[in-house]
Parts: sequence; C-alpha cells; structure tokens
Amino acid sequence: MNPILFITGNEGKLREVRELLPDVQGIDMDLAEIQEIDAHKIIAAKLAEAQRYQSGPFIVEDTSLYIDAMNGLPGPLIKWFLRAVGVLGVYKLTEAFESTKATARTIIGYAGEDGNILFFEGSIKGTVVPPRGTNGFGWDAIFQPDGYEKTFAEMTAEEKNQFSMRRLAVEGLRQHLEQAPVGAEV
Amino acid sequence: MNPILFITGNEGKLREVRELLPDVQGIDMDLAEIQEIDAHKIIAAKLAEAQRYQSGPFIVEDTSLYIDAMNGLPGPLIKWFLRAVGVLGVYKLTEAFESTKATARTIIGYAGEDGNILFFEGSIKGTVVPPRGTNGFGWDAIFQPDGYEKTFAEMTAEEKNQFSMRRLAVEGLRQHLEQAPVGAEV
Repeated sequence: MNPILFITGNEGKLREVRELLPDVQGIDMDLAEIQEIDAHKIIAAKLAEAQRYQSGPFIVEDTSLYIDAMNGLPGPLIKWFLRAVGVLGVYKLTEAFESTKATARTIIGYAGEDGNILFFEGSIKGTVVPPRGTNGFGWDAIFQPDGYEKTFAEMTAEEKNQFSMRRLAVEGLRQHLEQAPVGAEV
Repeated sequence: MNPILFITGNEGKLREVRELLPDVQGIDMDLAEIQEIDAHKIIAAKLAEAQRYQSGPFIVEDTSLYIDAMNGLPGPLIKWFLRAVGVLGVYKLTEAFESTKATARTIIGYAGEDGNILFFEGSIKGTVVPPRGTNGFGWDAIFQPDGYEKTFAEMTAEEKNQFSMRRLAVEGLRQHLEQAPVGAEV
C-alpha cells in the first residue's frame, strides 16, 4: 500500500494535515496552477498533472477566502490580492460592498490509486474586519469567524486548528479513508 | 514564408489586428492560461504551448485593466473580476482606494520562426468611472481615457481604434516586422 502524498510546499499545511492523518507524506512538486476561480478545477488539473509523473494516491488542497458580496472573489485568487494590496487592501475593497460577510473554505482533492478524484470540503463563516493579530499567515488577520471575538491571527494555532476549515476538510477525508482503506477496491 | 498566426477566439481582436497587419491569420487554439498576474508570463506560457503543437510564427495578446492604487490588480485577472462583480463592482472596489487612476495595457507576444519571443506594448492612461455607454465590450464602460470626456463604451469602434492600447501595440509589432521580415535572419 503506497502512502498518500500531499503535494504542497507549505510546511504549516502539511503539519496540520499530518495531525489527523499521520501516514500522509509531503511532496513538493512544482505544478502549474491554471487560471481559474473554481478551486475544484485548479485542484483537478494539478492532480492530473501529478499523475503524469508519478502514481498516487495524492492529495492537493486549496484554502481560500470567499467574500459573499463579491460572488466568489477573491477565492483562489486571494494570493494575488494579498501580494498586490495586502490584508488592509482586501479589507478596504470588501468594505466597498454592502456586506463584509465571508467564507473561509478548504477543498481537498484526493486522487486514489484508481485515478478517480474525490473532494472533501470544510467551510467556516465569518466577517472580514480591519487587520488584528500577528499569528497565522495569509489573510488570518482580517478573518473573524462567526461566534468568536478574535480573528484567526489572534488565536493560537491550537485554537484555530480545533475548528478550522482545514480541520473539517481533513476530517472528511479521514473518515472516507477509514471506510475505504487506501488501495482497497471500492 | 509562413503567415503569422494570431491565437485568439475573439473576432473583435482579430479584426483590429488585421486592420494594421492584413496578412495575420486567426487560429483558435484552446490553450491553458496559467495563474499569474504578470501578463508577460501568461503570454510566454501560451506561446510555448502553441509551439509544441505547430510551428510559428505566432502572436498572443493580453489586454488588461491595471488600477494604479491596486498595484497591478486586476491586470490579467480582470475577466474574473467582471464575471464575479461586473463593471459596477469593479468601479466600486476601485473607489475604495485613494485614486481611481488606471492604465489600459495591451501586450502582444510574438514568437518568430526561430522560437524567440518579443513583446510589444501599448498603454493608455485614464480613470475608472461609473459605467457609461454601451459600445465595445469587457470594461470599456468604466474606462475613461485621459483627455477625453467619453468612456471607451461611448466611442465608436473607429474612435477607439485610432488611439487604443491595442492599436499602439500592433503598431510596434508592425514596425518590427517591416524592419525584419518574417522568416528573415535577424
């Protein structure tokens, strides 16, 4: 039975996934990202490219910020927004719309040894707020989950990981793997 | 001598380019667009992919709106912005920043028969304004060129094409081709 290879260059993501799925191994493949706002398509394209070089199973994940009033933006384009205008800029442009409600979503694409792709998702609702806090990374400082007084960047890693969108998505994958062990006929 | 193949599915762009370069032929290849905010890299990747299937010379063009206060956004991501929030949404988020100054830029990548890539650019400065006019396409209704009282969408095609960013970029390519005819050693 081959180990599941998590295609990522991000040590933090790998650590969080391995907490729930200790057998996962990281592999840093430099795969082209297609220009798309639909994370499922980006993930599927990466998995297909990875399968050309090596046999799976593989996982690829996308964690993005979706501003409700912006109909799916920034979504997977969030990294370009951050590079261009920073977290304060993302807050400013969100405020230009009627609502600052947003969704933080992790989508994990899992390509089993049969090559088929399954998706597992985790979402957290919240609001985009003026930047607060220094923990975490990316847009953690401007995302305040509903029911909390803190942004992700004001939480410790342990607090965030107890209920994060990534946690929820990995949990879905874990449950699937328990029902259908890797390499088994399903 | 092979004709120059303009890789595009956009009839309007093809028509504008052929006005200055009548020998150019359109070819609609479905090439993946990499996720990038640098149009040069997107164009270079498309030209490289096209060269895998067919020999050139080829041209690929990108025409994007760059909002000065947003440091390069939306740039080539403009199509996702339009799909998500429309021209009014792009105006609203521009207004959230300190300046509505913007640049409309066409970049043409030309891959000669030797495979080398040359870039030709044309830029027009202007401002992002509330949508006016129904001509043109894309973000024409919110872009008002400096020195004009009309948006691109309030101009006729003839007016726009006399000084447009695409016109300027094609003119650069045309001058290059006159100095170094297609197929000649340079």
